[in-house]
Amino acid sequence: MTGMLLDLNADVVALTEAVVDIESVSRNEKALADAIESALSGIEHVEVTRIGNSLVARTDLGRDERVVIAGHIDTVPLNRNLPVRNDGSKLHGLGTCDMKGGVAVALRLAHSVPEPDRDVTFVFYDCEEIDDIYNGLGRIASERPDLIEADFAILMEPSDAVVEAGCQGTLRIEVIVRGQRAHSARSWRGINAIHGAGEVLRRLQEYDARRPVIDGLEYHEGLNAVAIHGGVAGNVIPDECVVEVNYRFAPDRSQAEAEEFVREFFAGFDLAVTDSAPGALPGLDVPAAKAFVEAVGGEVNPKFGWTDVSRFTALGVPAVNFGPGDPMFAHKQDEHVPVEHIERCELQLRDWLEAEL
Amino acid sequence: MTGMLLDLNADVVALTEAVVDIESVSRNEKALADAIESALSGIEHVEVTRIGNSLVARTDLGRDERVVIAGHIDTVPLNRNLPVRNDGSKLHGLGTCDMKGGVAVALRLAHSVPEPDRDVTFVFYDCEEIDDIYNGLGRIASERPDLIEADFAILMEPSDAVVEAGCQGTLRIEVIVRGQRAHSARSWRGINAIHGAGEVLRRLQEYDARRPVIDGLEYHEGLNAVAIHGGVAGNVIPDECVVEVNYRFAPDRSQAEAEEFVREFFAGFDLAVTDSAPGALPGLDVPAAKAFVEAVGGEVNPKFGWTDVSRFTALGVPAVNFGPGDPMFAHKQDEHVPVEHIERCELQLRDWLEAEL
Repeated sequence: MTGMLLDLNADVVALTEAVVDIESVSRNEKALADAIESALSGIEHVEVTRIGNSLVARTDLGRDERVVIAGHIDTVPLNRNLPVRNDGSKLHGLGTCDMKGGVAVALRLAHSVPEPDRDVTFVFYDCEEIDDIYNGLGRIASERPDLIEADFAILMEPSDAVVEAGCQGTLRIEVIVRGQRAHSARSWRGINAIHGAGEVLRRLQEYDARRPVIDGLEYHEGLNAVAIHGGVAGNVIPDECVVEVNYRFAPDRSQAEAEEFVREFFAGFDLAVTDSAPGALPGLDVPAAKAFVEAVGGEVNPKFGWTDVSRFTALGVPAVNFGPGDPMFAHKQDEHVPVEHIERCELQLRDWLEAEL
Repeated sequence: MTGMLLDLNADVVALTEAVVDIESVSRNEKALADAIESALSGIEHVEVTRIGNSLVARTDLGRDERVVIAGHIDTVPLNRNLPVRNDGSKLHGLGTCDMKGGVAVALRLAHSVPEPDRDVTFVFYDCEEIDDIYNGLGRIASERPDLIEADFAILMEPSDAVVEAGCQGTLRIEVIVRGQRAHSARSWRGINAIHGAGEVLRRLQEYDARRPVIDGLEYHEGLNAVAIHGGVAGNVIPDECVVEVNYRFAPDRSQAEAEEFVREFFAGFDLAVTDSAPGALPGLDVPAAKAFVEAVGGEVNPKFGWTDVSRFTALGVPAVNFGPGDPMFAHKQDEHVPVEHIERCELQLRDWLEAEL
């Protein structure tokens, strides 16, 4: 224990400020995990389990339904944006948006709703912002899957405080264009691989994005070069050029289908898949999801980015994103969250958890 | 002095082997320069001047005409290709082709032609293979231009032992394509600079090379991407892509005209010129050049690559390339020079220098 304490009796804005000011860049979450563990251990109506720097707190009231409310406690690296600054309407600083506002809301709910009308599993996990192998939610899923079994999950990623359902998958490939080296003074004796990459870029420029409608939500795919490199020396015709492409695909396509599409799209070129993660269907047809959407006002948007919603889906738990903050400000130096978002999220989730009381 | 000696009484092949085995990667030419200085100092009919690791040896017979015979003594870096290996018909090893065969020929001539029918200035210079500011010939031209005044110059760069006249100029530019960053999950909110570079590559692919005929020689221009780079992160639409282009231009174009052509060619894009060196016209109309070409058999090819011939031209000295070795093997791991080339070059130059005796 480091001695840093979180007061769960404070209002959600003050609590967010306190959580933000306990720095927790990925792989350095111990101080915040200690503070959360200490705070949770004072709550009688939940059972707390710690796995590494992740914490699970569960009610066990024998309700018909169990829901997960989850948030990661780590942030991307510091960028001269701590400590937190409250300008009255917004909190500014590292993690305010992604996603300590959501973490504070979940902590407040764990503390102040002793008898929810559905059993709740609160999950606070580490290492979401870095390589998949470190992901705390992944570790729980692999070591103690029983802890996160549920009928429905809410991931408190920033979503402008409205429900964002599903998530798009992502595929990364290298398109490799080959040529033949020659001295640039006698370029006609070689084959310029960079010039050959022009055809790859031409196809990318002509790409027409699919926008499938799934469960009433319009997704929007993207196929983009995210890097290109080639070149041997200033006087050499290059024999290789590599275009790194990122395909963001709607959740009606599997990873295999996404790869098949890309291979056809770049027919004639060598491809290497370097990374792949599945999308997640909105899953709004399950009763728990329907009830939640209704409770928070009925508005639902599609989620374009990839989130751990997909991890819940893979575990058979329908999940949505719902949290304070505009996701466009995540990972930015000027990251911030509207105070009104945090307060509204707490209120709506509390109303939902106490609806039948 | 390091104690390494060169025996100028040896035949030109043995002398080449000895020169090759004194390692002299650019900026490390002292041992070879010492050995050459020592060898030249034993020749009574030349006056020797040392400037850094470059040497100039001049006859002073009061002839009507003065010619320069020049070669650089440095090599590109080692590539597991020393010591020299003689397979009977070829010498293999670093510097055999570029250009210690030529250096050995010049040393033999300095030693064994005491009364040439034209005054001769032999130049052995350092740092040709690296950045222009280190070039030994450039240093002589700036510190002691009087030492290399002449009517005609022969640069013993590898040219398959036939005369290669003039040289093409070279221009390097960066074509900068700009866009606008966005998260790749919402790519339509950004402008992909790499996709934008497709137009640059399209123009390069459609480029139709000029092949002007100058003094009866057909040059062949080239416009090539030699490097490309762009990309911020695997999930970011990149806001910049830079294509590095090398334009090799025939010597009927000035540097300014070359730049003007390239600016027009890439109209609409930001350009930055990073390097430029002029070409050199063949200059075969001066009597000394005509006589030389005739003496070595009359065959003349255009020089596509850039060489220090251009430096002589800028000093007002018409110059050609003429040296043993196929330039395609310069800078290669399997660099080599035909023994027959070395012997023929020595013989033809000796005949030319003694023609009127």
